[in-house]
Amino acid sequence: MYRIAVDVMSGEKNPAELITGALQALKEEPEIELTLIGGYDIISEELAKTDSDSKRLKIENADQIINMDESPIKALRKKKNATVNVGAKLLKENKIDAFISPGNTGSVMAAGLLRVGRIKGVSRPPIAIQFPAVNGSTLVLDNGANTDCSPENLRQFALMGQLYAENVMKVENPRVALLNIGEEKSKGNNLSKESFKLLNSDTRIKNFIGNVEGRDIFSDSVDVVVTDGFVGNVVLKTTEGAASFFLDLLRESFQTNLRSKLAALLLKPYLKKVLKKIDYRQYGGAPLLGVKGVVIISHGSSDGTAIYNAVKTAKNTVKEDIVSLIKSELEKNEELE
Amino acid sequence: MYRIAVDVMSGEKNPAELITGALQALKEEPEIELTLIGGYDIISEELAKTDSDSKRLKIENADQIINMDESPIKALRKKKNATVNVGAKLLKENKIDAFISPGNTGSVMAAGLLRVGRIKGVSRPPIAIQFPAVNGSTLVLDNGANTDCSPENLRQFALMGQLYAENVMKVENPRVALLNIGEEKSKGNNLSKESFKLLNSDTRIKNFIGNVEGRDIFSDSVDVVVTDGFVGNVVLKTTEGAASFFLDLLRESFQTNLRSKLAALLLKPYLKKVLKKIDYRQYGGAPLLGVKGVVIISHGSSDGTAIYNAVKTAKNTVKEDIVSLIKSELEKNEELE
Repeated sequence: MYRIAVDVMSGEKNPAELITGALQALKEEPEIELTLIGGYDIISEELAKTDSDSKRLKIENADQIINMDESPIKALRKKKNATVNVGAKLLKENKIDAFISPGNTGSVMAAGLLRVGRIKGVSRPPIAIQFPAVNGSTLVLDNGANTDCSPENLRQFALMGQLYAENVMKVENPRVALLNIGEEKSKGNNLSKESFKLLNSDTRIKNFIGNVEGRDIFSDSVDVVVTDGFVGNVVLKTTEGAASFFLDLLRESFQTNLRSKLAALLLKPYLKKVLKKIDYRQYGGAPLLGVKGVVIISHGSSDGTAIYNAVKTAKNTVKEDIVSLIKSELEKNEELE
Repeated sequence: MYRIAVDVMSGEKNPAELITGALQALKEEPEIELTLIGGYDIISEELAKTDSDSKRLKIENADQIINMDESPIKALRKKKNATVNVGAKLLKENKIDAFISPGNTGSVMAAGLLRVGRIKGVSRPPIAIQFPAVNGSTLVLDNGANTDCSPENLRQFALMGQLYAENVMKVENPRVALLNIGEEKSKGNNLSKESFKLLNSDTRIKNFIGNVEGRDIFSDSVDVVVTDGFVGNVVLKTTEGAASFFLDLLRESFQTNLRSKLAALLLKPYLKKVLKKIDYRQYGGAPLLGVKGVVIISHGSSDGTAIYNAVKTAKNTVKEDIVSLIKSELEKNEELE
């Protein structure tokens, strides 16, 4: 059984919606044991409204939440019974295999780092996000956990990204690249020049294809893109901004007059497919790789669909035992040092 | 008169197309004197096909071009009669007021820096690009001229960006911000934390609104966004990539069947407006700010429309005398140091 816990309290959407998504996944996945983390009364009240009395379902009481604007580390210390503390503790004590939270990103990350703990040989656990791309998706890491990185950090991101792409995303011989501002190896800033050398010389990165640019993320030319958390987070937010700007322009153009409204109506089913393809909810969340357990950071605005998908992502990540794979690959690092 | 020179030879499109765009601008702007730079025979042959015998039109012979894959500095030294060398020399000798080139970006930049020269008090001239945004555009700088920057570099970018937004883009009291991965001042990497302090304490940056994120570039919340050239270039390419990915998905969805094709046909005029709004050609090119003359770097794939717009941008930039404005503001820097 895959034991997955979901923090249904600290997201922006109401618990009922997140519970519905999680229960849907439980229903479809017979090999899952689900723990819902949050206020006991709130959750049991919601469960009473549903017909789920699955023996594979538990509630774990956590009556505090860390707000989006709180300082993660401080709040983590102060609010002992916050959802993220409770989830991280269960993971640490091996009572669950995966913990999903749509709460304050910094607090989920800090709980992963401080309560669950780093795998030996991993200096800085990165957040790995799947970006939509032609014919699939591209894994970009780090997306904001580590703002200032060393070439060695980036090498570790590459190794972990490779393992995740191969085993969870099921990409054969994944192409790993460094995010840069040109393809030539002499390009970039000091960090990228040094990192290029390191990644290029590490034979454990089996299919290192060199430098790629921002636009390649959405193409079919690369599977894993490595960068520091500052740049990765800028890429993420720029993509979100560009997509929503473009969608707004489209929507506005559809509303011009009767003719445009009619055309938009005719196009609706096809546009839905386009939207689905770029919907961040399709993966439900991003794993914090390199900690001793599966921690999935979901978007604060996650709804039932996002949580449903996050549970499925968590299941696959546990099933492929990414934690052990990273352990056995990255612990070699420690020996090398 | 505003004396503007266009390198019509070193872009990816053929000279005829670029010449047509430049001539169109000449026709519409009576205060322009236009110099076409490139092979004399090629240009005069093209001009013979047109009816332009304007007294405000000159040809300046330059029979070498620097290819897109050449090393800029080396090529600049070796090819004395390359279009970018010729253009930069004319600017340096005050025979023209602005130079536009769609050639190898590194070579245009290097010609600006080495041949035209930096304004006193400007350590690192940045490339400033206008991104499309709700209700107008957002100026982002640097977009790739300087990969590793200091907080002082970013402060100078802010001052130059403010002057450009105010005087050329005609934005009243432009809102200047630092690109970061969160709004709080404690956010970001070492560079952004230090830069925040510097920008925040510089009273010459009249309307510093703090940190913004990648998504804000496309919103109506900021006018000038300051970042280092590595991050700026990643933002630019990510935006290009996301936009073209999204457009491809749309086009594909339009082609699904007869119904979708019909709807797309009906929508065409409205979609055109959307495309126009995100068309990089609308500004025609990006100024290299902080050199002793107006240097506009156009996209390698610039066509007639892009060059037409670049000439107009160049004219406005010369008209507002951005070079003198930067001189009088930034030379104070030198005194401070």
